[in-house]
Amino acid sequence: MADIFSIELKVRDYEVDLQGVVNNANYQHYLEHARHEYLQFIGLEFAKLTSEGIILVVKRIEIDYNSPLRSGDSFIVDCRTERISPLRFGFIQNIYRASDHKLVISAKVMGTAINRQGRPFLPPEIDKAF
Amino acid sequence: MADIFSIELKVRDYEVDLQGVVNNANYQHYLEHARHEYLQFIGLEFAKLTSEGIILVVKRIEIDYNSPLRSGDSFIVDCRTERISPLRFGFIQNIYRASDHKLVISAKVMGTAINRQGRPFLPPEIDKAF
Amino acid sequence: MADIFSIELKVRDYEVDLQGVVNNANYQHYLEHARHEYLQFIGLEFAKLTSEGIILVVKRIEIDYNSPLRSGDSFIVDCRTERISPLRFGFIQNIYRASDHKLVISAKVMGTAINRQGRPFLPPEIDKAF
Amino acid sequence: MADIFSIELKVRDYEVDLQGVVNNANYQHYLEHARHEYLQFIGLEFAKLTSEGIILVVKRIEIDYNSPLRSGDSFIVDCRTERISPLRFGFIQNIYRASDHKLVISAKVMGTAINRQGRPFLPPEIDKAF
Repeated sequence: MADIFSIELKVRDYEVDLQGVVNNANYQHYLEHARHEYLQFIGLEFAKLTSEGIILVVKRIEIDYNSPLRSGDSFIVDCRTERISPLRFGFIQNIYRASDHKLVISAKVMGTAINRQGRPFLPPEIDKAF
Repeated sequence: MADIFSIELKVRDYEVDLQGVVNNANYQHYLEHARHEYLQFIGLEFAKLTSEGIILVVKRIEIDYNSPLRSGDSFIVDCRTERISPLRFGFIQNIYRASDHKLVISAKVMGTAINRQGRPFLPPEIDKAF
Repeated sequence: MADIFSIELKVRDYEVDLQGVVNNANYQHYLEHARHEYLQFIGLEFAKLTSEGIILVVKRIEIDYNSPLRSGDSFIVDCRTERISPLRFGFIQNIYRASDHKLVISAKVMGTAINRQGRPFLPPEIDKAF
Repeated sequence: MADIFSIELKVRDYEVDLQGVVNNANYQHYLEHARHEYLQFIGLEFAKLTSEGIILVVKRIEIDYNSPLRSGDSFIVDCRTERISPLRFGFIQNIYRASDHKLVISAKVMGTAINRQGRPFLPPEIDKAF
């Protein structure tokens, strides 16, 4: 589908661990960066939201690891949104190796927005985005 | 229960992001480190296994984020194992803030062992461990 | 000398890269963590200083790499201070492998303090510390 | 000059620390990635060299920090080489903010090549590159 937001990145060698593949936690970095790029794309800047007291937080993440990335690989990280409940929103994300579009990981990330006191706080611009 | 393996660590400030809390992906680093320490505790060294062609891989991870860690916090990462299937093993892990034992995250990590060709390969020492 | 501040840490496997040794940039993480622990030891908390508008910044770093750390290694990071100029302070830091006290890296880190507008700003508690 | 190799990257929010700027150690990651991209550009793949027993190691790094990068910033990392001695080679690297070409850091990275036994080993393809 043409309407799924995605970014292309390339493995950096410091992200590769002693097994010769990208370390598991780094995929979470890739996913976060794609989400923040998506938010910027729709007009919401993560750092600006934070400074305004709109704290976007991840409440749960599920990642299925299919096939690893290695040194030299380019890859695509996509990002779709879905509304889970009045206060919860979700991101459905996949990472594919660029050379052959092989699935690397698939993930589901669920989050909410809180204020500086930790209370649920979903301002209209966030509400509209999901 | 006294028989759950755990390690205590302290937040390093570079792990804290612009929201002032430990970045989500870093908890996965803490979990991995506790698993590798657990493996060493029962006589299995991750790097040695890797060099012998026994590749331990994570197939799925689920993390529930309850409460964030901040600069200065010490925390406990625990690690219990369970056998999921003949070829799959699991780790049940929690992170608690040391000062008040408040739950930070709870996680379920499922893995398997493969050889260098990517085939399932569960040698006796791994089989026995779970 | 007994009066040099130091901390002991252990290599985490995600810090080891495809060469099988701790990635160069991670030593800078170890050095920073030891500096912040030193500051806390003398009563200065990095995060609290930051929130009060006292921004400690590194202006120059020099690192000599002698011998790498590997998976499983414990190591000692020490931290001495020296005053370089009215507005500049320095940290002399070494990392040693714990098992045999072999020198891993030696570093010189020069810094200053600025306010939120980026102007030099060395309040008495920082001035006194160096 | 048109003949300086460079790459353009964008700050990822997990690279930004509690001071709201890219953490010092991450610039070293950017520099390393640019060096490896440069090596690939001239036909030398870091991971392949490593697997062939040609271990490129950094012996000394000097970084001057001029101005920080923040969330949302794109930046350019360049990479020039110079021969220091028969067994030592150097990289002169700068990072500039893309929006206004403001200097972020300047660095000098000195390295050598060793074999798996840790002996100096500068094969012709490395020798020729510097």
